[in-house]
Amino acid sequence: MKSEINEKNAALGSERSVIREIFEYGNMRAAKIGRENVFDFSLGNPAVPTPDCINESIARLCRENADVHGYTSAQGALSVREKIAETINARFSAGASADDIYMTCGAAASLTITLNALVCSPQDEVAAFAPYFPEYRVFAESAGAVFRAVDADKDSFQISFASLEKTLNENTKAVIINSPNNPTGAVLTEKTLVRLCALLKEKSTEYGHHIYIISDEPYRELVYDNTDVPYMPAMYDDCIVCYSFSKSLSLAGERIGYIFVNPKAEYAKRIYAAVCGAGRALGYVCAPSLMQYAVAENMGDFADIAAYKRRRDLLYNALCDYGYDCVFPDGAFYLFVRSPLDDAKEFCELAKKYELLLVPSDSFGCGGYVRISYCVPEETIKRSLPLFKKLIDSIKREQIL
Amino acid sequence: MKSEINEKNAALGSERSVIREIFEYGNMRAAKIGRENVFDFSLGNPAVPTPDCINESIARLCRENADVHGYTSAQGALSVREKIAETINARFSAGASADDIYMTCGAAASLTITLNALVCSPQDEVAAFAPYFPEYRVFAESAGAVFRAVDADKDSFQISFASLEKTLNENTKAVIINSPNNPTGAVLTEKTLVRLCALLKEKSTEYGHHIYIISDEPYRELVYDNTDVPYMPAMYDDCIVCYSFSKSLSLAGERIGYIFVNPKAEYAKRIYAAVCGAGRALGYVCAPSLMQYAVAENMGDFADIAAYKRRRDLLYNALCDYGYDCVFPDGAFYLFVRSPLDDAKEFCELAKKYELLLVPSDSFGCGGYVRISYCVPEETIKRSLPLFKKLIDSIKREQIL
Repeated sequence: MKSEINEKNAALGSERSVIREIFEYGNMRAAKIGRENVFDFSLGNPAVPTPDCINESIARLCRENADVHGYTSAQGALSVREKIAETINARFSAGASADDIYMTCGAAASLTITLNALVCSPQDEVAAFAPYFPEYRVFAESAGAVFRAVDADKDSFQISFASLEKTLNENTKAVIINSPNNPTGAVLTEKTLVRLCALLKEKSTEYGHHIYIISDEPYRELVYDNTDVPYMPAMYDDCIVCYSFSKSLSLAGERIGYIFVNPKAEYAKRIYAAVCGAGRALGYVCAPSLMQYAVAENMGDFADIAAYKRRRDLLYNALCDYGYDCVFPDGAFYLFVRSPLDDAKEFCELAKKYELLLVPSDSFGCGGYVRISYCVPEETIKRSLPLFKKLIDSIKREQIL
Repeated sequence: MKSEINEKNAALGSERSVIREIFEYGNMRAAKIGRENVFDFSLGNPAVPTPDCINESIARLCRENADVHGYTSAQGALSVREKIAETINARFSAGASADDIYMTCGAAASLTITLNALVCSPQDEVAAFAPYFPEYRVFAESAGAVFRAVDADKDSFQISFASLEKTLNENTKAVIINSPNNPTGAVLTEKTLVRLCALLKEKSTEYGHHIYIISDEPYRELVYDNTDVPYMPAMYDDCIVCYSFSKSLSLAGERIGYIFVNPKAEYAKRIYAAVCGAGRALGYVCAPSLMQYAVAENMGDFADIAAYKRRRDLLYNALCDYGYDCVFPDGAFYLFVRSPLDDAKEFCELAKKYELLLVPSDSFGCGGYVRISYCVPEETIKRSLPLFKKLIDSIKREQIL
């Protein structure tokens, strides 16, 4: 009998992402030569512990609040949304009320819900700047849009406005920004963002419809040396923030985040309604209740950011020292390194011989680099350094010969 | 400037469901006359407490397992899926392995992911039996299918095969069953299901493609008097079970459940891949990790089912006694009562005068009834009984006059 299922989703489910492929390879190697001898820099699973205050809140909420496991309203518990609005108002003068906040099952859900709220025609286009998180394409296409990649600005990993201007057209519905960026760790400067906003406003007027900025902010809190991460809704009215507590509180598996629809957007109320509708249509009844209450109780707390900074400094300084060409990451927990070989995949294969598991940058829409996730134990980084040195030395020797 | 957002989702997000509407009215009344004087039977939010073992697991996992808040694999932690497979194999001889189980954010996610895995053409039809959970229509349409309601069998609330035969056609992709049923509490008997399976097998052969049964089972464990709830995968190969721990463990807000793809289905592996792909496309990165581990540790435990039975008996016996015509519920926590007035909405309006908040059955695709959610404190039921009596007595008086 015929198989008549959704083949697009079947393909999506059977292709392992490049990152998962490497992760599984690492597990295989670990079984063979011992976990401590494999240096897996592939995944973005935070190794810095969840702050104690979160676990304490969880335990107390379970003990004291009989309703903690019950349904909240679909957009999230009112008290939680109020607390988040209050916090972003205090930090960013966001002008938010509880009714502009929609609690989600993490950043991916924030993005799929937002995209399903905005996209309304198969001609709609969603643009993102290379290098970009590969799932942006999946999410945009699944919401029914065409995904468009803007070429990378390989000089500074800000924005290539020449490429952006070529990408924008009357079908552009939204532009996704991600600062601090996965996979480069770059933070978009105020100067860059001012120019971006001006261009998008100009184009919105030209096309006669709003171009939305979707600000994907899972790494907002992970910045070092007091780097400023400008708040997009303060700069651009038609902005929707997709936030997640996955990295800021090391809660990646718990799936907790929120959407903030800028009340200054012309159709803010209607967009918020579409967010609620999209969440409903995709099967998100409410965000996990216990986690909603737990994060609301600890809005000022973050995982140990200094621990990430130590890892960044350790890895960045050593790798530069050995002769690698690295993008200096102001935030997130990724190091983006130019491949010493023309073919980044070939370089990653070579790195495997030293048990170093790196991700080639091709799947991020920008060839010639590798991504190193340094959200691993500090000890792992320390013990990997001699191998990184051997790796580049072997290439240098080869190139001299 | 034009608003070009997804108007379908905006409409879905701004229309409050009838149930939510009543719930909000209840809140308003409670503010006016006191919570204890409003008898809100509208929502299915379990009032029977979460078992202590779950809260103990949560506290211990947070204390002892440093990785408990980290990403699990997309289909769920292997140990969790193994435990679930083992449990359903022991209970139902399901022949399941961990690779047939996909952990989800609750029943709604189980359904949207399953529907997105199966539906592949705008002609595809998904059928459900009235009275049905209203979101079935939303989920099916959002997955791109046509929703088809099979008329209710108002004699026994089993299946009207005459209506089903009229509904089935070569576009039928799947049939959703929900036993015990929301809103009637009826349990489909083995005899009914044998007939259903035979018919669907016959039609699958006739149409040359598989018709899937999606068994939506949030109420599986909530049955009384040892009522048997046959396990569909044992009776029908092309079956996908959508399970949730929301009711069985009073964890409705935590969004935790699973999909079980029957390995006996001809294309089981491909369907499972499509489930993984659909989950990914909809933004479900993984089910909440802490809850995955917590339910896996307590697979044999359930909320206090006897407490629900006491409520059912109390309410059913009293209402029958007063002269209401009630469907006897073998399971779930709903009482489906024939409206004493022709118009169920009018009856619900009248009930409001007695501060009794009931849901008219129209939105369940079956007019002339009301749904009473008895998952409320026992005391609430006891104190409501005199009001139910006054309500029907007032109607009887009116009808005599």
